[in-house]
Amino acid sequence: MRVFIAGMDGYLGWPLAQYLTARGHEVAGADIGFRREWVAEMGSWSATPISSMKERLQAFKRRSGTELRFWDGDLREYEVVENIFREFQPDAIVHFAECPSAPYSMIDVHHAVFVQTNNITTTFNLLFAMRNVRPQAKLVKLGTMGEYGTPNLDIPEGFFEVDFRGRHDRIPFPRQAGSWYHWSKVHGSNNIMFACNIWGLGATDIMQGVVFGTRIDEMGDDEQLLSRLDFDQAFGTAVNRFCCQAVIGHPLTPFGKGHQRRGFLPLRDSMQCITLTLENPPQAGEYRVFNQFEEVYDVTELALKVQKVASNLGLDVEVRNLENPRKEREEHYYKPDHQHLFDLGYQPTHDVEAEMKIMLSDLLEYRERIEAKRAALIPDVRWDGRREKVKFLSTESVSTGLD
Amino acid sequence: MRVFIAGMDGYLGWPLAQYLTARGHEVAGADIGFRREWVAEMGSWSATPISSMKERLQAFKRRSGTELRFWDGDLREYEVVENIFREFQPDAIVHFAECPSAPYSMIDVHHAVFVQTNNITTTFNLLFAMRNVRPQAKLVKLGTMGEYGTPNLDIPEGFFEVDFRGRHDRIPFPRQAGSWYHWSKVHGSNNIMFACNIWGLGATDIMQGVVFGTRIDEMGDDEQLLSRLDFDQAFGTAVNRFCCQAVIGHPLTPFGKGHQRRGFLPLRDSMQCITLTLENPPQAGEYRVFNQFEEVYDVTELALKVQKVASNLGLDVEVRNLENPRKEREEHYYKPDHQHLFDLGYQPTHDVEAEMKIMLSDLLEYRERIEAKRAALIPDVRWDGRREKVKFLSTESVSTGLD
Repeated sequence: MRVFIAGMDGYLGWPLAQYLTARGHEVAGADIGFRREWVAEMGSWSATPISSMKERLQAFKRRSGTELRFWDGDLREYEVVENIFREFQPDAIVHFAECPSAPYSMIDVHHAVFVQTNNITTTFNLLFAMRNVRPQAKLVKLGTMGEYGTPNLDIPEGFFEVDFRGRHDRIPFPRQAGSWYHWSKVHGSNNIMFACNIWGLGATDIMQGVVFGTRIDEMGDDEQLLSRLDFDQAFGTAVNRFCCQAVIGHPLTPFGKGHQRRGFLPLRDSMQCITLTLENPPQAGEYRVFNQFEEVYDVTELALKVQKVASNLGLDVEVRNLENPRKEREEHYYKPDHQHLFDLGYQPTHDVEAEMKIMLSDLLEYRERIEAKRAALIPDVRWDGRREKVKFLSTESVSTGLD
Repeated sequence: MRVFIAGMDGYLGWPLAQYLTARGHEVAGADIGFRREWVAEMGSWSATPISSMKERLQAFKRRSGTELRFWDGDLREYEVVENIFREFQPDAIVHFAECPSAPYSMIDVHHAVFVQTNNITTTFNLLFAMRNVRPQAKLVKLGTMGEYGTPNLDIPEGFFEVDFRGRHDRIPFPRQAGSWYHWSKVHGSNNIMFACNIWGLGATDIMQGVVFGTRIDEMGDDEQLLSRLDFDQAFGTAVNRFCCQAVIGHPLTPFGKGHQRRGFLPLRDSMQCITLTLENPPQAGEYRVFNQFEEVYDVTELALKVQKVASNLGLDVEVRNLENPRKEREEHYYKPDHQHLFDLGYQPTHDVEAEMKIMLSDLLEYRERIEAKRAALIPDVRWDGRREKVKFLSTESVSTGLD
């Protein structure tokens, strides 16, 4: 299958190119390098020392013997996208070409506008290029479990059957996102659902949980094949941040009460799920939604797991709650479905602690890089509009092991 | 009350400035004149000969003695919006500064991107300027009943109580819009709901039905105070188009089977409802949704009403169905609530035929202007992506009076 990865330079894009190639797919990608710029703007860099795209491609060719096609193009320009589609004639498109950060979108009006218009524009360009050039190709769109928010209801996969005043219908499950970024993903989901309806395109919208992990097996020991791994307030996510904090002896920092519950999954599970989605495509005209995560965890539970695994490696770190820069429920009901991917054969990595051990071992090699950007660990982008570093909530560390 | 009208040059903005001023409010507005450009791009113009904004303001001053403050500014530039807010210190903002056309948004990728990014950006700029300068001001956002689509359920006003798998919650009613434009309004609704939640702003989101009418009483007989009235495929709406067709002897053209049901309301009712909304503002932090229409009508029912009223004026016209350029249900359940505005005292104009008679009389004066742009009446923007004039569905006219 010819798979085009929009956003191949990112946290998921670069591993996916390797994972799919190893499974015999023909992969091409495009990226203009925005992620590197955004992280630099946040005063940080990847914990892993990532090479330039040119070097990455050379390293991949050395290791795999395969040359990946790559366009250093701006996917906000429709003509760029259409030309790529005409040249490569993809059978499937994986859409990672969006700005993926909630805090980045909350900085100010310019960042809010940038994130939403950037994400809407790349999505439109991919949809129209599919319609105009490759209507038979199938789209895999990276959304987020964050689109749903935390309703006081079970969360189905995209749609639900509802009775209301004596009538019945199957309708989209309402979204209640928690940042301008998360809303941009909702806007994208809505646009894709409509495109499938009017043009007969086929798409899978992945409501993905929080991904963690430094590697997949395909990377071997080649540093140039490593993915980026961010730990700053904007582009770092929970477990990745905790592991980076642990290796430099920084407290692990859940926000607020720390009992936010979210779906999580290791990087290798994300690769497995996206590949299953690609290899089991939707019908023409079908818009389907997969909730993609291994299991639901309490954020403090994960911090305590990282603490425990770190301790076994001789790293002693506290878990200390920070003032929450976000506006979100810190204790809430949370029960999302995630059956569709299991039905397709998803084999989850249940050993989260083993994954954390690999991460900590990998990251220990780069502790100086994390130490050098230590200031980027503490958030100052607040949902109320202020830009001011959050404080630790108490001088005591969390010790009630939920484990 | 100091009311800022974003988009004061449009179909609703200009009458609202007059209506509110007559009721003692201090009105200011901004507009960059995009609507005039878009209609010209569609090969058309307003049936009514509209003056420049400068002349409109002078005419209004002559008639009312009041000078309206006006900024010829681009509301997509945040600094423009913030400067206006600092100067005018509005108590309320009426947001009409969006591109309001479904067919215009469906022309091609560039129009889709333009409509959604334009509408998102102006909305963001107003929200951030409220937060940064006038958090106590209240927003009235013009949305559309088209955000809901046509589910097989009653349509509540924005939110509904739902039971799902034994649990209960009050959640947003899912939107299923029917064009990139309509989805842009959904994106805006979602963004505003979130802004109210995180920043404590107050907003009313008006899900408005299809407006028709050439005038409000406040315009008197001064041609320069008239509103624009569009009849082209993109910016003309059902009853307005039927009336323009009638005065030049062109068939009235429902699309497809013609049994789409929609909420409609006269222009004077729209002014009354928006004023009631302004004068009964939401609480801080409150996001409320009003469904704003007088009554639900079948499109063919309205065409036959126009035909009958026209006949009484000596204008004989057929009703002939056109191929539907859209993808939509042409026969469907439709029962939206619209209680909130009645609770605030909305007195609907129930005599739709009297309103049509006024419209036809007004438009007869401008039949040459409509005749000159006759070609703009037949759609060629199709939802499937083709740009090709639609055909009449049969040689017979509709004669089964639903009346």
